[in-house]
Amino acid sequence: VTTPVQVGVIGYGYWGPNLVRNFTASPRTHVVAVADRDEARRRAVAGFHPWIHTTASAEELIADPAIEAIAIATPLFTHHPLAKAALEAGKHVLVEKPLAGSVAECEELTALAAARGLVLMVDHTFVYTGAVRKIREIVASGLLGRILYFDSVRINLGLFQPDFNVVWDLAPHDLSILDHALGLVPRWVQAIGARHYEGQHENLAYLTIGFDDGVLAHVHVNWLAPVKTRLTTIAGTDRMLVYDDANPAERVKLYESGVDMRALEPELAHRMNVQYRTGDVLVPKLDPTEALRRVVDELAMAITERRAPLTDGAAGLRVVRVLEAAQTSIERGGERIAL
Amino acid sequence: VTTPVQVGVIGYGYWGPNLVRNFTASPRTHVVAVADRDEARRRAVAGFHPWIHTTASAEELIADPAIEAIAIATPLFTHHPLAKAALEAGKHVLVEKPLAGSVAECEELTALAAARGLVLMVDHTFVYTGAVRKIREIVASGLLGRILYFDSVRINLGLFQPDFNVVWDLAPHDLSILDHALGLVPRWVQAIGARHYEGQHENLAYLTIGFDDGVLAHVHVNWLAPVKTRLTTIAGTDRMLVYDDANPAERVKLYESGVDMRALEPELAHRMNVQYRTGDVLVPKLDPTEALRRVVDELAMAITERRAPLTDGAAGLRVVRVLEAAQTSIERGGERIAL
Amino acid sequence: VTTPVQVGVIGYGYWGPNLVRNFTASPRTHVVAVADRDEARRRAVAGFHPWIHTTASAEELIADPAIEAIAIATPLFTHHPLAKAALEAGKHVLVEKPLAGSVAECEELTALAAARGLVLMVDHTFVYTGAVRKIREIVASGLLGRILYFDSVRINLGLFQPDFNVVWDLAPHDLSILDHALGLVPRWVQAIGARHYEGQHENLAYLTIGFDDGVLAHVHVNWLAPVKTRLTTIAGTDRMLVYDDANPAERVKLYESGVDMRALEPELAHRMNVQYRTGDVLVPKLDPTEALRRVVDELAMAITERRAPLTDGAAGLRVVRVLEAAQTSIERGGERIAL
Amino acid sequence: VTTPVQVGVIGYGYWGPNLVRNFTASPRTHVVAVADRDEARRRAVAGFHPWIHTTASAEELIADPAIEAIAIATPLFTHHPLAKAALEAGKHVLVEKPLAGSVAECEELTALAAARGLVLMVDHTFVYTGAVRKIREIVASGLLGRILYFDSVRINLGLFQPDFNVVWDLAPHDLSILDHALGLVPRWVQAIGARHYEGQHENLAYLTIGFDDGVLAHVHVNWLAPVKTRLTTIAGTDRMLVYDDANPAERVKLYESGVDMRALEPELAHRMNVQYRTGDVLVPKLDPTEALRRVVDELAMAITERRAPLTDGAAGLRVVRVLEAAQTSIERGGERIAL
Repeated sequence: VTTPVQVGVIGYGYWGPNLVRNFTASPRTHVVAVADRDEARRRAVAGFHPWIHTTASAEELIADPAIEAIAIATPLFTHHPLAKAALEAGKHVLVEKPLAGSVAECEELTALAAARGLVLMVDHTFVYTGAVRKIREIVASGLLGRILYFDSVRINLGLFQPDFNVVWDLAPHDLSILDHALGLVPRWVQAIGARHYEGQHENLAYLTIGFDDGVLAHVHVNWLAPVKTRLTTIAGTDRMLVYDDANPAERVKLYESGVDMRALEPELAHRMNVQYRTGDVLVPKLDPTEALRRVVDELAMAITERRAPLTDGAAGLRVVRVLEAAQTSIERGGERIAL
Repeated sequence: VTTPVQVGVIGYGYWGPNLVRNFTASPRTHVVAVADRDEARRRAVAGFHPWIHTTASAEELIADPAIEAIAIATPLFTHHPLAKAALEAGKHVLVEKPLAGSVAECEELTALAAARGLVLMVDHTFVYTGAVRKIREIVASGLLGRILYFDSVRINLGLFQPDFNVVWDLAPHDLSILDHALGLVPRWVQAIGARHYEGQHENLAYLTIGFDDGVLAHVHVNWLAPVKTRLTTIAGTDRMLVYDDANPAERVKLYESGVDMRALEPELAHRMNVQYRTGDVLVPKLDPTEALRRVVDELAMAITERRAPLTDGAAGLRVVRVLEAAQTSIERGGERIAL
Repeated sequence: VTTPVQVGVIGYGYWGPNLVRNFTASPRTHVVAVADRDEARRRAVAGFHPWIHTTASAEELIADPAIEAIAIATPLFTHHPLAKAALEAGKHVLVEKPLAGSVAECEELTALAAARGLVLMVDHTFVYTGAVRKIREIVASGLLGRILYFDSVRINLGLFQPDFNVVWDLAPHDLSILDHALGLVPRWVQAIGARHYEGQHENLAYLTIGFDDGVLAHVHVNWLAPVKTRLTTIAGTDRMLVYDDANPAERVKLYESGVDMRALEPELAHRMNVQYRTGDVLVPKLDPTEALRRVVDELAMAITERRAPLTDGAAGLRVVRVLEAAQTSIERGGERIAL
Repeated sequence: VTTPVQVGVIGYGYWGPNLVRNFTASPRTHVVAVADRDEARRRAVAGFHPWIHTTASAEELIADPAIEAIAIATPLFTHHPLAKAALEAGKHVLVEKPLAGSVAECEELTALAAARGLVLMVDHTFVYTGAVRKIREIVASGLLGRILYFDSVRINLGLFQPDFNVVWDLAPHDLSILDHALGLVPRWVQAIGARHYEGQHENLAYLTIGFDDGVLAHVHVNWLAPVKTRLTTIAGTDRMLVYDDANPAERVKLYESGVDMRALEPELAHRMNVQYRTGDVLVPKLDPTEALRRVVDELAMAITERRAPLTDGAAGLRVVRVLEAAQTSIERGGERIAL
């Protein structure tokens, strides 16, 4: 058994408590200290985990020689400066999604981590869920055939964020799933957004992403929808897959359905009544392990084994590259942005 | 009681039998003859309705002096020539959606009908459903407040049409609902489509339509989806509405939910935990009358009362204008097309 | 190709038109005449099927030498006299479910048919659906393991019947599915019913049926429920099956779930946290053929091949035996009635 | 502001941690000590709540003069001895459902509490949910009209309990909802159960409970069902209500549906096609407060205000009376047991 990785956590707002809980539960990690500027939050840490040191100063945490790895769960605009400082202090770093606020920032962080031989990991949590792991397995097995499209709807009545729009808030989930499960290289992005409340960022956006061979991805993100929906469809020539994260009992469904390509041939088209085939539907059992527990274990193992984690800085960069292009497209009225 | 309108029907394929059944059931209309080139279909007419004359010749039907109104349920490319011939022969005309294959064709037909004082009606069937009638009533009552967006998903494993793409096949439904229920004037269209099978038209498309004041409409149409979905959301500042046509027991739901605009003010934003309000949901009872029965009655009444029908040539033109722009946008790689 | 069986249909109310439509569509049968006392219904026959002779007299139909088989779709109290008369006139007989109003009547009919060498068939329509055929196949294959229980809920806002209660109206469906799919011999019945409206029969009832080895079946039938539900669960030691007839897209689901019997052993019980196992869920593709089409074909084939049909008089009798015992139990305040 | 009630908790297994969490969160209560025989559980208390004293001895807790109220979250067979000892030591008592293992035990406890002037409360948690509170409000308002029946299904793949059967495990929820929402006096109980695994208690049971005027309640409880279901229907002459606890977004639905009583009159019965009316469905907004928080606050307020709590010993007794009768009925093969 190896010694647990000594971790410091910056930010104890919405996500920080989940990180601390999982770092604490894992035998591979140990939380030394938590930094948060808010006194009430520091008291909350002390209440639940009295042995964890708390501080208002992220700098103090970063400077602590007892800490090997820093987890950053703070607002987006602080990701880059905090991660940079941590890397420069020789710490391994885990950053909440998205990795940073621009491609340039991501590139600087990945270069810095590489130069120092440190682990830089982004918390693309969904990649570690039983559902997405199963989806990747299905795609990789070839069961879907040639991939045709990816369509995702991630909408609900959600908090308007003061610092960024709905694209930066919600689309990282879909883009990281897309990146991980399909592994295709996006060629262009086109996005349209709407700001429905004065002084606010876009609360609704549609992203379309083009790949080679006519493969399309489309993502609908929305803070102003009456029904919470997390619904992703991946269609291939042989089978189709639906991932409904709002249906815990049947999250992933694999449909043995598709177009009967022979029936599309010209001489048959007018003779055949049905051009498609339907078949069984399979609802595979999923690994119920909490995704965030896998995240913290992956961080620890990457550090221990001196290897890149599954969602490394490059993965974070790939997602931010699409986010940044989508932002540009929205600002230019839906213009197509090449990647 | 007035004499029933004497009707001829051209086309007895998929939709024609429904038209004949409803024309027959209504006391306001009487079917004199049906024209179809296919002999088996003509025999089917004779089997079910032995008193109806059948013919292979649409021209014969149009020339029949006993016929006052012609219903056209044939492939899209024949809508314009058949409707034009019928109007020129002094017949009132009902055309399946979409009205015709281009804006120019629609304009020619509406001008011709106006010049001759004839009824030109398009069969935007959904406009006559209990669900859409209720939605229009709710919107018109002001219950939703200011309209913010319209989002529609109309997807399933559907027949690939040989003559046109999925936009011309499915989007007329959404566009006619949008036109009828909201009554807003579209300013631009942007559309992206994909052809996943060689030699076929687009089987998947995303349309975005811009209106004044940042109001957006988005329509996803798709012939290659594993789960049949007909789901439309209309969001307003005060309430939101979901129309799920695949859920017959609860087709329309009115949500007393929305953003709490006060909570978005800068000085409150960081203090308030929740910026939205939720409330009751109402599932209104809907009129179960078959929509097509209302269509044939509206045709008959418009003829008798010498007035424009609810879905007149102008409505058909408005829908085709968006379809044509979407087609252009798809061909130009998603470019924004002003209307 | 054999000559079609010449059929006469008695009763053209709710179910009769479906029978005539399927007899007409099948090449194995030909409808000669329809008898119904109601003139409007006879006109309806003439409108749709002008070649079919109509008569007000069931006796005339039964006496017609051109008719080989009689289908009876009339109120329950007429099943026995009509079927008896038809059998005595040498006709094969198909009767709507339930076969007759008592065990004695059913026994008389089955004896009569046997004595005359005629086919006596009961229209247990559900037995011929793709769903129930698949369920029987799954049970027969042994996939479920040892059967533990059958639970069925068949409720909706339904018509109060003037001649009999909800048990005789709805439970034949469940009992015929139970009889066909599981093939177990019931040992006792216990039923409780409620009459909520004066002068009406029971509108709500719960039936419990006991089999050997502790296997139980339970059926809830109800004319006064807000949501239409047709939900049957069959649990076995190895797998469990749910048949949701109100969900056309996923009617049958096979769950690889159950109790982990080892975990129930005394010395483990307090140590093991989870005693059950869950696994994949399979939604098998079902044959979409209309069940009633299979019914009429089975009738014709049984006649032609001189064999008993799948749902013969004995099957009808088995169902009526349970219905009659349930009726007695209800009248005796829920007393257990041995079979 | 009053001083918080000083609480001791016995049992830190499944439910105890929830009790402690809510007692801790409420300003009305303060947890002094937790007793549990299991050392690992005591360590868990210390980890989360280091200021709480822990002990292996329930007796020590009961004897502690600093404690005013004892919450008992231990196995059923210990409820009576522990509650009795606590009341005799002058402590107010909150007991997990069901209150005790027999009517006699419940009567002894209620008499003891009355004699000592102490609060005896049973944790019928569901009574404190937003859903059941809304249901009681709807019933009390008379919106449903005269109550006709109550039907509840509470089934899932659940843990087989070593000490009691599924009736004592799950039915207390339904019976406490029934008792609280409808407030009717049960007259008889009839129950049938099945033991599908040797050496185990009943894992499946159907309870029918009779009230005056033909009102029926039926409860299906089951540890061996593939799909988790918590579905309760309450039908009245004017409206019907469905409570689906497995659907968090739409837990309670009020249907403006029912039978059109005029249409049931004999002279109309054969003329009217539809005997029922359907109308709007309302999904009322529910108070999202955690039910257990209301439980602990009700305990504290009842103690402070020297009054009976909402779910007092009498309520606990009413539920146990039905449980005991159901148990007797199961043992006697479904015999009707008068209450």
